[in-house]
Parts: sequence; structure tokens; C-alpha cells
Amino acid sequence: MSDAPTKFLLSERDVPTHWVNLLPDLPGEPLPPLNPQTKQPAGPEDLTPIFPMGLIGQEVSPEPLVEIPPEVREAYKLWRPTPLFRARRLERALDTPAHLYYKYEGGSPAGSHKPNTAVPQAFENAREGIRKLVTETGAGQWGSALAFACGLFGLECEVFMVGSSYDQKPYRRSMMQTWGATVHRSPSSETQAGRSQAEHATGSLGIAISEAVEVAAGDERANYALGSVLNHVLLHQTVIGQEAMAQMEMAGEEPDVVVGCVGGGSNFAGIAFPFVRRVLRGEASTRFVAAEPAACPTLTRGAYRYDFGDTVGMTPLMPMYTLGHDFVPPPVHAGGLRYHGDAPMLCGLVKEGLVEARAYRQNETFEAALRFARTEGVIPAPEPAHAIRAVLEEAEAAKQAGEERVILLNLCGHGHFDLAAYDAYLAGQLEDPEFSEADMQAALERLPDDVPAIA
Amino acid sequence: MSDAPTKFLLSERDVPTHWVNLLPDLPGEPLPPLNPQTKQPAGPEDLTPIFPMGLIGQEVSPEPLVEIPPEVREAYKLWRPTPLFRARRLERALDTPAHLYYKYEGGSPAGSHKPNTAVPQAFENAREGIRKLVTETGAGQWGSALAFACGLFGLECEVFMVGSSYDQKPYRRSMMQTWGATVHRSPSSETQAGRSQAEHATGSLGIAISEAVEVAAGDERANYALGSVLNHVLLHQTVIGQEAMAQMEMAGEEPDVVVGCVGGGSNFAGIAFPFVRRVLRGEASTRFVAAEPAACPTLTRGAYRYDFGDTVGMTPLMPMYTLGHDFVPPPVHAGGLRYHGDAPMLCGLVKEGLVEARAYRQNETFEAALRFARTEGVIPAPEPAHAIRAVLEEAEAAKQAGEERVILLNLCGHGHFDLAAYDAYLAGQLEDPEFSEADMQAALERLPDDVPAIA
Repeated sequence: MSDAPTKFLLSERDVPTHWVNLLPDLPGEPLPPLNPQTKQPAGPEDLTPIFPMGLIGQEVSPEPLVEIPPEVREAYKLWRPTPLFRARRLERALDTPAHLYYKYEGGSPAGSHKPNTAVPQAFENAREGIRKLVTETGAGQWGSALAFACGLFGLECEVFMVGSSYDQKPYRRSMMQTWGATVHRSPSSETQAGRSQAEHATGSLGIAISEAVEVAAGDERANYALGSVLNHVLLHQTVIGQEAMAQMEMAGEEPDVVVGCVGGGSNFAGIAFPFVRRVLRGEASTRFVAAEPAACPTLTRGAYRYDFGDTVGMTPLMPMYTLGHDFVPPPVHAGGLRYHGDAPMLCGLVKEGLVEARAYRQNETFEAALRFARTEGVIPAPEPAHAIRAVLEEAEAAKQAGEERVILLNLCGHGHFDLAAYDAYLAGQLEDPEFSEADMQAALERLPDDVPAIA
Repeated sequence: MSDAPTKFLLSERDVPTHWVNLLPDLPGEPLPPLNPQTKQPAGPEDLTPIFPMGLIGQEVSPEPLVEIPPEVREAYKLWRPTPLFRARRLERALDTPAHLYYKYEGGSPAGSHKPNTAVPQAFENAREGIRKLVTETGAGQWGSALAFACGLFGLECEVFMVGSSYDQKPYRRSMMQTWGATVHRSPSSETQAGRSQAEHATGSLGIAISEAVEVAAGDERANYALGSVLNHVLLHQTVIGQEAMAQMEMAGEEPDVVVGCVGGGSNFAGIAFPFVRRVLRGEASTRFVAAEPAACPTLTRGAYRYDFGDTVGMTPLMPMYTLGHDFVPPPVHAGGLRYHGDAPMLCGLVKEGLVEARAYRQNETFEAALRFARTEGVIPAPEPAHAIRAVLEEAEAAKQAGEERVILLNLCGHGHFDLAAYDAYLAGQLEDPEFSEADMQAALERLPDDVPAIA
């Protein structure tokens, strides 16, 4: 028993030297983002007011591999490579023939995968003389990652935190302040966007993005930073999948299915894209499952359309599955999954049928998370609890089929700041919102109609 | 820059196979614990009502190495071996020639070193047919570790949590419940001890111990579990120091000084004892620094006397530095350091001059913790913040001396459940209690006087 390997570790020499860029492997020409005013394809000049050239270059890079700067690799070593575990205790509890593996990103200083992109974003901005980064955060995972990363490179950090989270998760705010960031409750009185949305007192991610973009655009020494959705963010996260691939080789196995949760899509892309590339190149036949909340079912029920990334309509229009840029999802605890759209690259893969999306209700995800915590120890964040739910389904399917399937999960963060939600679940008081037909109709009516259709 | 190693990792094959027992290497005969009624040396029969024979055997073992059961080693692999880091960013910030290393125990499921002993304690009890473990917890680190460990071996877990922590740290309570434990606010109405102390509404560790021991002693299928102080607990923690020794060899260095914080002494013993043994055997000349709170200065100001481990006087009398068994320390945030005594084995080493103790005020420890968080990323728990303070002093001394000293720190846990304290510190509202001469006089008057003197 005790000699069966359960943990696969790489040394710091094995921190990847490059990020995997899936763009050149995707079939067809990628759909361009559009300028929000002209509705014409957006060029680099549309992005320079808020992003450094280094990141804009990564956003549109045609290179299949993008070199990781030495300063970024050095910072990655504070917590990378992350461990890969075989969940043998969970396997025994489920009595499944499936082999369950999880890549654990919760050991980073901020407790999630978010520092994987916060660090290179802070580095590129610092390199180009930027003094301050401005961003939004929902549950606080992204804001705390950026606060940590800005500290490493001597940048100021200003965070607009969604009002309801600001009130409910004071410790996430304290974490950002501990790393030196300034945190505003959004909607705030600091910006025109915030003042225009003052009646939405609990705020939303879309409003907070508008506020952060406004501040960044109005200060030439400040830039904006986004924690998901954009190509360069997904690119940075591919360190996860590359390490996992090396670790699965150590385990002598190949995943039959790769599972992750999706809010904007960055942790999912992080673990999946290196494996997706092998599928696109005909070298593997891996399946991919993206898990999202039934209360914000972008991939499973959204319209595939051009839409804004923020509520006010300041960002470029992006081709994606969307529930409408002013959709305010119910306050499920998986704050990182409460976004009206998804990364265009991921949406393209879903559209092509390469990635299967599934939506889960809040209570069933907490049931899965509890099962995980009580066997493997780690208390998962509510976001990856959705992915764990999908893993339980896959493990049960393997049992039904009597097959020894290999399942790889991205456990993208711990739930140390989400225990109030576990409390509510254990007390039987957790809400279980769904997305109704009426919600869907309202969403469709909210979509901008003066945008080019997608073929 | 980026090629300089910062992280030293062992594989799961390197989880130690034995615990290091310092008892046989200690000079002279160890002072025995005394029966609380007869004041005569306590034998195994004094302990069987609340501890399993497996642990009693470890408590008094004359063997220099004690084998770790395979089931325990397998569970250890859920988070062990833990990483050793070279704190290069902190070194640069301090501009010190010292080499700073930290062993990081915060990556365990419960977030501290406590599972190192919770797991073997749960295992030995389960092996002997015990159905339930009962314990106390202060800040919640120990209670959550035991809740996690009981879950692994199918035991029930009942925790008496110090009232003030129960109120201030609801998330630690939720964490225990997530792993399936039952949690009572102490003093409770569940026990005679609790009812007798009802006027001390905020509770204390001593009262909570009395409650837990009472429940365990009154139920023959239940036992008690203690998270520090006892020999077998210190024994279990030596996995930390053994791994650190192997990792320092990987780094090609030998520590000049080993630093840890002390509440009951278990994390300090865990990192230090394997190195202390080399000193006792004349194989090294390492220094050892134990850091404690100025508000509860047991090692620096306590009397070296026999005293009870709990408030009510139910536990054996132990030879230790003590502030009196009914001392209620001020509510500093380092809840794990708020104990009136210390492990007898550690006290003996302090008495012999092998370990140097230093006391720090709360604010200076948070200043040190913030410095650590902003360079190395990890937000430390308030307990190891005391050790970090001592490391900063040692690094400054190395700078003054112009010497390249090697300093090894045990960073025994993260501060994710202590961010309210960081909040208070950042707002300049953190209290800074000290232990006065009057407190000392009161403490001395409270010591039991009908106990044998220590020569």
C-alpha cells in the first residue's frame, strides 16, 4: 500500500522555459477582436493605452512557443513546479477503476493558479516603465495574485473589488493590503463608470472592469491587467499543463480525459492547451470537459456572438459564448466563475466540439468538494468544486463501463477564504440558483445588435 | 540570477522511515511526570484511561529511532516531504550576507505542522479500537489537523475550542466541520470542568484541555489527543528536521543556527531535535533560538517547576518552565503560543543552555511577517512570525559581523485564517501587551506548592 506512488514532483529546473501558444495550431483564421466604437478589427494601437507592448505581442504571437523571461522563471520558483497527486484515497472511496490525478495549484502564495499570469504581467509592465497596475477582482483570487506580483517587481497595485465580495470576504481584501495593494469597493466614487452604476450597490465583475480600465486609460504611467479571457493570460497558464504532462509521464500514464472549471477560461486552458495541441496535431485523442455553474452557464447556454468584455462597453468586442455584457449572475460562491463570457480561444474549441461543457448546480458541487476534502485532505475552492463534480461523474462512468480510465483534474485553488460557503452547505442553507428560460431570453435581448455576425 | 537554486524538494520515497527520539541522547535521567493526586512518578497506568498503548510506548521509548508505521507514511505523502526554500528575495531586501532557509509546513491540508502528529495519533487510536478522539484547540490549528486525521482513519472527532477563538475565527471552526468534526465552544455546558469555569466566558487553553480530558476519561471508547508538549508529539514532529537535514545537504550547507517559535514546543522540537542530537553527540556546534511572545514568556521568564498541564489540574504534573497552570495570557493573535508551560524535553534543553529563548512583542513580529510576505510571498501565521523576527535579528547580526552565516527557520504555518490580525496591524490598531513584574509575581504565587522541587 504505502509504496504506491501518490505524488509526482518536479525540481525547479523543470519549471517550463516556454509557454505553449495554441493560436498557430488552431484550424482556420482566428476571429479578431473589434474596436468598441468602429466595430472594425482592433489592432495593437487599440490596446496600447492599457497594455504594454510585451503583452500585446504575446496576445497576437504566431509562435507555437513563447520564451519565459528569466526574471519570471525565477519568481515562478517561489511556488512552481506544483505537485501532481494521484487521488488514491478518493479512488478507494468511490470504488472506481478510474485513475484520478489532480494538479494542485493552491500552494501558490495567493492560493490559486492566478499568480502564473500575474507575475509575467507585472514583469512586462515594470520592464516598460509602468508605475502602477489597476485591475478588478471578484472573489479576490485575481486581485490578491496581482497584489503579490506587483510587490515582486516594485509596482503599485490598485484593485476594484466587486462590492458583495468586498463585504463578504474581508480577509481577501486584507491579503491584498498585506502585499501592499490599495483596494476600492466597486462601484466606487473614484470613476465615472462607478458613479454611473451606483444603483447596483453589490457591484459586478463587468462594472469593476469598467472602473479599472477607466483609471488605467486615464493615467499614462498606469496600465490595466486582466486575470483571464485574453490570449496572453491563457498562454501564461500553460505552465500548468506542461508540468502535468511531464508528471503524467513520471506516473507512466496518459490522460483519457482532462477536466477543469471555467469562469473566463484561464485555469482550464492552462491545464488543457498543451494536451489540446497534441490532439490538434493528431498525436492523441484526449477528451476535455469544462465545468461551469448552472447559475452562469455561458458555454452551455450562451449565444456565440461578439460582445463586450465589460458592462459599460469600454473593452474591445470579442467573439465568445456570452449571456450579455450587463448580465449580473446570482451570487454563487464560485465568484471566479461569475463572468458573462469566456475566453475566445476556448469558445472556439467548444464550438468545434473539441471541448465538452457541462453545467452544475451549487449544492452538488459542494457535495463533491466535501467528498474530496474528506478523502484527499485539501479543501477546494468553490470554483474547482465544479470540476471535481465532473470528475466524480467521469469516475462513475468508468465504473459502469468497467474501464481503467485516466482522469486528470486541475485543482486550481484552495477554499480557505470560502469556508462561510462550506458552513452554509453543512447547515443545509446554501442557495441553489439556476438560469431560467426567462433569464436566457433576457440575455439574448441584451446582446449588442450592431455587431458583425459570426459565420 | 535565475539559475541559483531557491527550492529543495525531496520525493515521496524520502519521507522519513523513522522518527528521531532524543530521550536516550539527553544527559542524565529525565524527570518523570507525576500523578496529579499522589505526586508520585506517573506510570503507564496513569495514562491508559486517555491514551492508547502505542502512544504511551512512544512517550517513554528508550530507542533512538522509532519506526513510522506504513499507514502513517502513506498518509504523510498527502503533503510530505515539505519544501525547503532559500529566501533569496528576503536576503536581498535585508542586504545581509547570511543565507536564509525556511522549511515550509504550511502546505499541509490543515495549513501547519500539526498533521505530522495528528495522523500517527489517529492511527494508533484507530488501531486499538478507539471510536472517538477528543481534544482542545486554541486558534484552531490543532483542532483542524486532528479533524483531518480522524477523517483519514474513520474516527469521530470532538473539539473543545477556546471561546474567544470560536467567536473570532469562525472559518477555523468551519474547517473542522468540513472534515467532519463536532466543535464545542469552551467553556461549555458539556462537562463539569466547563460548567465550573463558566465565569471565564472567553475561555483558555487550560480550561479546554480540562474539558476534553474529562470527556475522554469518561468514555472507554474515546481517548484524548494533545497537539504539543508530550514526548510522543515532539517525536512525531521530527520528520520536519530530518527532511530539512537532507535538504540542507542538497543545498550544500550546514545551519549555523536553527530558529523556531515555541508555544508548547512541538514545531520547534520538530525542526531542531535531529540537529540537537548531532550537537549532543559532538558532531556539530549548531545554535538554537526559540522565539516566544513577550505576552506569554514561559521560557524566558517562567519558573522551572512541576506544574499541571491544564487549568483544573487533571493532567500529570510535568517538569517545565511555567507561568502557572491557571494563567490566562492576553489575547495575542498567536493563539498557538498562548500556553502557560512548555514541553519538558525542550525545557530541559533550555535549562542546559543548549537552546536560547527570546521573547518578542506582538507588533514587531507582525512587522517581520509583513516583510517576509512582501518578499517571499507566503503570509505567515502569527506564531512563526515570532521566529521570523528572530531570523531578522540573526541576519542583521551576520551583517554586522560581516559573516556568511546559515540560518534555518521553521515556517510552521500560513496566516490565511489570521488576516484580521494583519488588518489590525496595517491599521495601526494591534495591541502590544507585555508581561509585567506584577504578572510575574502573581504567576509565582499561583504555582502549586505541594510538589517536589527540581534540583
